[in-house]
Amino acid sequence: MREVFPDDFTRVRSSLVIMAKAVREAMRQASAALLAADQNLAHGVTVRDAEIDVLYRVVEDRVYDLVARRRPVGGDLRVVMTALQVAADLDRMGELAVHVARSTLRRHPQPAVAPELALLFRSMAAVADELAAKIVSALADQDEVLAAGLDADDDAMDELHRDLFAVMLSHEWPVGVEAAVDGALLGRYYERYADHAVNIGRQVAFLPSGRPAEAA
Amino acid sequence: MREVFPDDFTRVRSSLVIMAKAVREAMRQASAALLAADQNLAHGVTVRDAEIDVLYRVVEDRVYDLVARRRPVGGDLRVVMTALQVAADLDRMGELAVHVARSTLRRHPQPAVAPELALLFRSMAAVADELAAKIVSALADQDEVLAAGLDADDDAMDELHRDLFAVMLSHEWPVGVEAAVDGALLGRYYERYADHAVNIGRQVAFLPSGRPAEAA
Repeated sequence: MREVFPDDFTRVRSSLVIMAKAVREAMRQASAALLAADQNLAHGVTVRDAEIDVLYRVVEDRVYDLVARRRPVGGDLRVVMTALQVAADLDRMGELAVHVARSTLRRHPQPAVAPELALLFRSMAAVADELAAKIVSALADQDEVLAAGLDADDDAMDELHRDLFAVMLSHEWPVGVEAAVDGALLGRYYERYADHAVNIGRQVAFLPSGRPAEAA
Repeated sequence: MREVFPDDFTRVRSSLVIMAKAVREAMRQASAALLAADQNLAHGVTVRDAEIDVLYRVVEDRVYDLVARRRPVGGDLRVVMTALQVAADLDRMGELAVHVARSTLRRHPQPAVAPELALLFRSMAAVADELAAKIVSALADQDEVLAAGLDADDDAMDELHRDLFAVMLSHEWPVGVEAAVDGALLGRYYERYADHAVNIGRQVAFLPSGRPAEAA
């Protein structure tokens, strides 16, 4: 691992950890709202997405401030700029949580998840939360081993995604087109959430090792 | 508009234009394959995505080479780095074309688009191509007016997307769950393709004005 401005990078890394925690919490609440058809909880997710947008700007400001003070070039600049890619992935994960919340709001007071699919989506929500928890830890502790384990969770998500389509496209599917359309889109949101988490895991290895105070 | 290293930025902008043309062609072919259930054409899209990945690396290399030579900081660095965000959006547009192609391959020799939805997807493909054409022009000519017009196309795409769901969720929908699931996911791919194009349009205004040779 490159050791580039470890002290300066601490503030950047701290803001990434805070952002990752917010994104984890957003999907936790979006999943809880989805599975309980809870309108208030879902609405809260859509409102608090603005906080994630602000955190994204904080990461950007800290990265550019670091660059202005230290003037890295070449490989050093690349590793510092990796933080912006991580922030972009986290921002998108937050937006996907909002999409899940909006599905809940759109069908309320009916549940957006058909009873036949509830167990599958409970599992997808659990895997998504596991991925997000690992991202938080990997960013906080520069834990490359933890980050590498994300692929196994992503495989689990892909398998749940395949199971979802198998259930919906089976001849016994009794619930109809609307539930299947909701299921297809919700499945895609969780799958993309996992993809972005895996992206972040790949990038953690390239981040400078500045260690946030809260992880020390 | 900021004028930052106009001569140096020419090579960066040229590579973005080439990448945008490749991404436009990828979705043109993916749409043609989808509407004709053409397996060979769809397979070609999945294979040529590697070329878009290479172009992405070219943009990155040219950006970092520029930064190494000119050492911009603060606002100047931000505008140069905008090119990386544009390249990331273009890369994702290429991946969405691959998703459309894979839908075609998955259902072959059956069409992935139900006859009831063919006209809607023909329109979505046309709007996607219009958006991509405008992105190419906006990047080649730094045309902010053209870029601003993307929002109207995006509105058209959103309306087609709503129409799609209205058709699939109507009580007259005769085609069944599998066609609706395919329709929902394909609709999402086209909608996301348009979203990324709009993102690029917003960023064009911030790009340095280095003018590619082919646009001079």
